[in-house]
Amino acid sequence: MGFVSVLSYVHQLIGQRVASGDTVIDATLGTGVDACFMAKLVGARGSVYGFDIQQAALDQTEQRLAKELPDAHVHMSLCSHALMEAAVPQDRHGKVAAVTFNLGYLPGADTAIITEQASTIPALEAALRLLRKGGIVTIVLYSGHDGGSEEAAAVERWASQLPLAAVQVLRYQFANRSASAPYLLALEKR
Amino acid sequence: MGFVSVLSYVHQLIGQRVASGDTVIDATLGTGVDACFMAKLVGARGSVYGFDIQQAALDQTEQRLAKELPDAHVHMSLCSHALMEAAVPQDRHGKVAAVTFNLGYLPGADTAIITEQASTIPALEAALRLLRKGGIVTIVLYSGHDGGSEEAAAVERWASQLPLAAVQVLRYQFANRSASAPYLLALEKR
Repeated sequence: MGFVSVLSYVHQLIGQRVASGDTVIDATLGTGVDACFMAKLVGARGSVYGFDIQQAALDQTEQRLAKELPDAHVHMSLCSHALMEAAVPQDRHGKVAAVTFNLGYLPGADTAIITEQASTIPALEAALRLLRKGGIVTIVLYSGHDGGSEEAAAVERWASQLPLAAVQVLRYQFANRSASAPYLLALEKR
Repeated sequence: MGFVSVLSYVHQLIGQRVASGDTVIDATLGTGVDACFMAKLVGARGSVYGFDIQQAALDQTEQRLAKELPDAHVHMSLCSHALMEAAVPQDRHGKVAAVTFNLGYLPGADTAIITEQASTIPALEAALRLLRKGGIVTIVLYSGHDGGSEEAAAVERWASQLPLAAVQVLRYQFANRSASAPYLLALEKR
């Protein structure tokens, strides 16, 4: 049967923790897969906030939604995910159910435009502040591209020192793939 | 809700792959938790083979079975798990559904008696040979005790070079615990 893929495992973990009416965040819209998946979970009563620094990502997400979930709405911001706290309404702070990060570059676009630790770490800190107890942050890491291994190492360092009393950090990773294969760090707020 | 613990995750992975009538192996009987869990899964038509180098482990497994599953039988061998191929009938070679390893020392016993790479790696090789396609080997690793980190490093090296076409290797690990916290490598034969 094979082990569940990293991306499917992300959706399993989120599916177990996000319900109709919840507020969730896609910190790296990319092609919109996570935003679309979470929009289905939270439904019309819920809210999805999405961020990306490239207009192409917002466009691709819009197209995916139009096709797969035409009634859904995602609040999209063309800015760094490090600014997510400004875009999410104050009354939802501390109540967010899930935040997804899919690091690296936008598939099919300029591979020089990548997420970098200088903004990724502040964004992760913001995500943890926005999260409710029992909420989850998922981080899919890639270390194959230029700058990827440095970013992955910085995220690993940051995650490994999080106090266990406040956050549980899980690694889900295929161990005999090339270094460029994606892997997951998942954070649950306690 | 918290993430599923390493030991519960082992039982999840095994529960998804082992059915009534199957042949399974507990390579490190210890207190008998895995043997007892798998005896329930395979039922009266299945077979469980168990190994430990300490009589105390066989006794504890026997006691657990008598209490939790009095009708079950586990074929127990007081020898190194590196010899498992001799104890499992020839006609079950290549047909084993699951092999569990729980490395380190027997809880409550002499902590100087530990599993070591010199026998652990040959035992893992034997386990892979015995496995059927789709079968699983689970390895719970501890690096907190003397000799533990050397053994874990040796198992990691061995597992990371397994050809992906033959075996998929999954790591499930809590990333912000002490180095002595157990973690999982799971191998599925393809």
